Amino acid sequence: MSALRFPNLPPSEPQGSDLLAQERSKTTFSTHELSTFLYGELYLERQERLLTLIENEPAFDKSNRYFRGRAERFAAALRKDHAIVRLAMKHQWTLEECIQAESLIDEPGPFGLHRGMFLPALASQSTDEQLEKFLKPAQRYEIIGCYAQTELGHGSNVQGIETTATYIPETDQFEIHTPYLTASKWWIGGLGKAANHAVVMARLITAGKDYGPHAFIVPIRSMEDHTLLPGVMAGDIGPKFGYNTTDNGCMWFDHYRIPRISLLAKFSSIKPGSGEYIKPPNDKLSYGTMVLVRASLIAAARQGMGKAVTIATRYSAIRRQFVDNDSPKKLGGEVVETPVLDYSTQQYRLFPIIAAVYACFFTSKEMMRLYHLNIKNMASGDFSMLADVHASSSGLKSLTTTMAAGSIEVCRRACGGHGFSAFSGLPLMLQDYVPNVTWEGDNYMITQQTGRYLFKSFRELVAKRASGKFQASLISNPTLAYMNTYLENPSLKCPATTPAQFHNPELQLAAFGHRAASLVAQIVHALDVEKRTWNSMLVDIYNASVAHCQLIMVQNFILGIRGEMPQPEGMAVPPLTGVAKEALTDLSDLFALHTIHEKPGEFLTSGYLEAKHVSMLGAAVMELMEKKVRPNAVGFVDAFAFPDYLLNSAIGAFDGRVYERYTEMATREPLNRTEVVDGYEQYIRPFTNPKGLKGHTMQARL
Amino acid sequence: MSALRFPNLPPSEPQGSDLLAQERSKTTFSTHELSTFLYGELYLERQERLLTLIENEPAFDKSNRYFRGRAERFAAALRKDHAIVRLAMKHQWTLEECIQAESLIDEPGPFGLHRGMFLPALASQSTDEQLEKFLKPAQRYEIIGCYAQTELGHGSNVQGIETTATYIPETDQFEIHTPYLTASKWWIGGLGKAANHAVVMARLITAGKDYGPHAFIVPIRSMEDHTLLPGVMAGDIGPKFGYNTTDNGCMWFDHYRIPRISLLAKFSSIKPGSGEYIKPPNDKLSYGTMVLVRASLIAAARQGMGKAVTIATRYSAIRRQFVDNDSPKKLGGEVVETPVLDYSTQQYRLFPIIAAVYACFFTSKEMMRLYHLNIKNMASGDFSMLADVHASSSGLKSLTTTMAAGSIEVCRRACGGHGFSAFSGLPLMLQDYVPNVTWEGDNYMITQQTGRYLFKSFRELVAKRASGKFQASLISNPTLAYMNTYLENPSLKCPATTPAQFHNPELQLAAFGHRAASLVAQIVHALDVEKRTWNSMLVDIYNASVAHCQLIMVQNFILGIRGEMPQPEGMAVPPLTGVAKEALTDLSDLFALHTIHEKPGEFLTSGYLEAKHVSMLGAAVMELMEKKVRPNAVGFVDAFAFPDYLLNSAIGAFDGRVYERYTEMATREPLNRTEVVDGYEQYIRPFTNPKGLKGHTMQARL
Repeated sequence: MSALRFPNLPPSEPQGSDLLAQERSKTTFSTHELSTFLYGELYLERQERLLTLIENEPAFDKSNRYFRGRAERFAAALRKDHAIVRLAMKHQWTLEECIQAESLIDEPGPFGLHRGMFLPALASQSTDEQLEKFLKPAQRYEIIGCYAQTELGHGSNVQGIETTATYIPETDQFEIHTPYLTASKWWIGGLGKAANHAVVMARLITAGKDYGPHAFIVPIRSMEDHTLLPGVMAGDIGPKFGYNTTDNGCMWFDHYRIPRISLLAKFSSIKPGSGEYIKPPNDKLSYGTMVLVRASLIAAARQGMGKAVTIATRYSAIRRQFVDNDSPKKLGGEVVETPVLDYSTQQYRLFPIIAAVYACFFTSKEMMRLYHLNIKNMASGDFSMLADVHASSSGLKSLTTTMAAGSIEVCRRACGGHGFSAFSGLPLMLQDYVPNVTWEGDNYMITQQTGRYLFKSFRELVAKRASGKFQASLISNPTLAYMNTYLENPSLKCPATTPAQFHNPELQLAAFGHRAASLVAQIVHALDVEKRTWNSMLVDIYNASVAHCQLIMVQNFILGIRGEMPQPEGMAVPPLTGVAKEALTDLSDLFALHTIHEKPGEFLTSGYLEAKHVSMLGAAVMELMEKKVRPNAVGFVDAFAFPDYLLNSAIGAFDGRVYERYTEMATREPLNRTEVVDGYEQYIRPFTNPKGLKGHTMQARL
Repeated sequence: MSALRFPNLPPSEPQGSDLLAQERSKTTFSTHELSTFLYGELYLERQERLLTLIENEPAFDKSNRYFRGRAERFAAALRKDHAIVRLAMKHQWTLEECIQAESLIDEPGPFGLHRGMFLPALASQSTDEQLEKFLKPAQRYEIIGCYAQTELGHGSNVQGIETTATYIPETDQFEIHTPYLTASKWWIGGLGKAANHAVVMARLITAGKDYGPHAFIVPIRSMEDHTLLPGVMAGDIGPKFGYNTTDNGCMWFDHYRIPRISLLAKFSSIKPGSGEYIKPPNDKLSYGTMVLVRASLIAAARQGMGKAVTIATRYSAIRRQFVDNDSPKKLGGEVVETPVLDYSTQQYRLFPIIAAVYACFFTSKEMMRLYHLNIKNMASGDFSMLADVHASSSGLKSLTTTMAAGSIEVCRRACGGHGFSAFSGLPLMLQDYVPNVTWEGDNYMITQQTGRYLFKSFRELVAKRASGKFQASLISNPTLAYMNTYLENPSLKCPATTPAQFHNPELQLAAFGHRAASLVAQIVHALDVEKRTWNSMLVDIYNASVAHCQLIMVQNFILGIRGEMPQPEGMAVPPLTGVAKEALTDLSDLFALHTIHEKPGEFLTSGYLEAKHVSMLGAAVMELMEKKVRPNAVGFVDAFAFPDYLLNSAIGAFDGRVYERYTEMATREPLNRTEVVDGYEQYIRPFTNPKGLKGHTMQARL
């Protein structure tokens, strides 16, 4: 019961619901058609079905999510994760259904890494015996696991981890041990409180030799009563910027013994007794999994940005501020304030993000297709795609997650003061999203993987061209193709003489290709000719990776709209046509042109653009946003089909009732349960009304 | 008592404390000398004195700050604010001492706006009678107030607020009323729970006419028992991204009557009976206060960035990752991992922020000097400085707070996973800092004020130059000076032919001046000749404001180091000399050159730079960072003199004991009070050990 009660007053005119209805009436395309193009009927139907189920389950209720402290939030998340497992078992959900349900509930929880990391690690690294012994009970949640790789002193550099697993021939056991404080396992999701087993990465030491990190499955809590097993100490690592609903944990082993079968031995093993180490075969296969994880992070970037920009766009269509004197709005003859979405700065902040969401859509789909194709090829011994796919997936993980984290914050700020309120949904969204820029490889560091591949390709291409046996028509790989175009004519110039000519996709591709290849050429020259150190080139390498990946995104966007992108097997969708195709072409243009306009430096220094082109581009971008994107803005975000339950935002709901939802949420703030605040007698009254106080010294008034 | 106990193990070698000691031994200058140059002896002594007092007061203890939920945090903040007032009264603190103590305690609280906004509003807008009646008791905290301007539907546009104050001649009263839901007062700091009075901005309506927003002092809670007064409804607006220790509140009035004396009447008033409105005089004086607030936000940006980069720099000197194969580090003959601060990407992320802190230092000092000078001038009727100072302060508020918010997040990410932990201090720092980009004018919106002034100045200058009576030597204003240089030679080219030549400050100033003036010239042409609308130019206007303000910052940095900046009266410090001057010159170069290198587009399109210069700049920046800034990095941040108590960071403390502090903090996590988590029986055991459960159906295992 709240002491705060708002009057039954409407917001002043015009009403948010009317404004959004107007916006929707201006949309040129069918949002349902566009949603179907993006997700397919199957997904949208499943969303409806799951939503009904989920919204009726009290453990999935979001109405108190923003009010809880850490302990309450964790308790609710544990209950929620329990309910997901229960429901999944009851309804025999497929993996897709599980993922989609979790994405709607949208809260990292204590069992998240069990499904996300522990089960896949077991599945891919176990022998048949281990699959039976560990994976099966884990699939039934008898074993609840976590993936313990990161240590207090080591994150990205897995080779540096310090925990040891020493083979003891006498007992045919491993002794897991934490030799230093820095070797404490840290950040392990689900370890803090929930897991009873861990896949532990530890240095395998046998017969006096250190073979580096290997995976062990280790029981950590009693199956009887969940207490920690002797020799294991573990707990929660404390509060974080986000992810407070997950029990990221820490762990320390004191000469802890486990049987030999604990070494996940699909690839490498130990001979009992002698302790002889049996080497793994070619480890290229593991890159395949890394590509999958990174491709799924591109999809998560799309989802994160999409949710944020849905909220900000709808709110900006409703929120009004100042009067634009050059074109004042009227309502019933009176001049009213202009919706902030009509201001060109607001458009410049939000519309490129809408475009980026669609760009990520095409690229994540393509990366997923390439992943599956590559896995299939590798299974038949063909590793020819691996390097390109791995390099692109690293760079794209870096680019898209950096874009998404930045974009969510741009959306939050674009909502002004109300974007600072938890009720907007944006703060928690940002806080839970940002680990993406750090995990699976810090976004600066992993671009070195992209760089290495680009430089190698470039050098090989240059050598081939010099060999006299080169034929451009034999190039099958898109990376070599754009590099070759550059080498054919390194002083290519942009032919545009009007803003309109920048709408030509071939020109856009030429600009991005020329810039990326020119950066690569410069770096290869610096490394090979000037003999600069690798470390001194890291900033340039990062920039080259960004340039390469922006080209990929522009390319996939253009081909995707044209229906010229190869379709994943069994998942072909009919190509876009008519008004929807036109509308997405506007966004594709905006994505490409805004990317150049916002940071034209490298396009200028590559020699492709001249100064005059930058102002043409500016004109093209501003006109595109005002004339083409603005009328469809709400339609574009509606097409993402995010239900209100998912967004959980007072200001971004479908119906536009911003102020009504917002005030209603404020009445639920726990501080409002009492009219007079708890500390009043002790901390306020001594100043304001000390006479009424009994036995209180008047010191405060001295 | 924690169930989590860490072993008494040291981190692996080398130890953080040794690493920081090494860093400090490499510093070329005396950090104490540099601190003294920045703050003055007086400030540093006061910091020591206050710190002793503060660290001994239990209400100011920070050790549980990161663990508390909203209600607990608010309760602790109320206790803390009470203790500050008590201590300030006891020790008769000056305003400077109060501000410095609050800055050390570093937590927004319920009384913050009482001192920050309520008292200044009363002081500046009250008649003598009102000063006596309201200000005096407010200074004794009998009246505790808040400043109620923002409404649910209106933020930046004060003219749009909807709350009304209608004069009732019959009773000589005003009737305050909330006509719409959107007119609810919202975001008001201190209103939610603490305040018993509010300065309310409401539309003054008298004799049937609406005179727009005016300030009223309004009792809202009973002085007897703190209950809400009849006709007033108020409460807390709920959780936010940051500032959760402040009770930002909402309020609604139902035909609430207050006496005529409630209208703060220094400038405008109402004749009793007739209700005749008496107009305010020239309101230019209020711009003076706006400049003060914005100048203080520049200082806050410096403080925010400074704290974050202190933590990130110290941690990066300790944290090691991978081996740099071109120059491997050794310890006792063994190759060890390289400190992340040695990687050029980490330097490119952090060192420009260190430089930016020093840049903000000189500019905030200069803005403060200009504020005082302008106030003095205006008091004697000279308004000649006002326009320039007001324009610069708007643009600088926008630029420096955007820089600081971005930089804090860059620092947080540069700390990798541990930057995501609350114990790093960085998440809360970011969350409490970011409102700065929104309040006191959204950072996009307020650059229009800078733009208007720049365009007006440019047009006047062009007209004067065309008049035939123009003499460049008569220009006294720095804005006109750089514009005139541009007009003298709009096709000026950078003369540099080597990276080293970019270290020339005159060249840097020419680059920034030419770029800023060229942007202004383009916009004026677009507005005046092409007749583009103001709205369509907002992005360009924002960019022009950034360019103007970056020039100011580069200029102040250069002059400040040279000792050529005018000194504030009575606060002169001796100029820098010797090694400290050299070291700061490196940072000044880095600030200027990195700013160009990171976004060279406008420097290229202005025609000043060519493509070849950008690679020279890159080389200059990388070398400067590696050779000059790297050895002094820890010294530069040590010189900020932030005590550990202020930083409250496990990874950024002075002594470098990162992992020891971090693990110690984790033991205090409330979830670690029990070994087995509370929800175990209900949510985990049904899966893992259902046999032991009594009366529990086995549904979960179906």
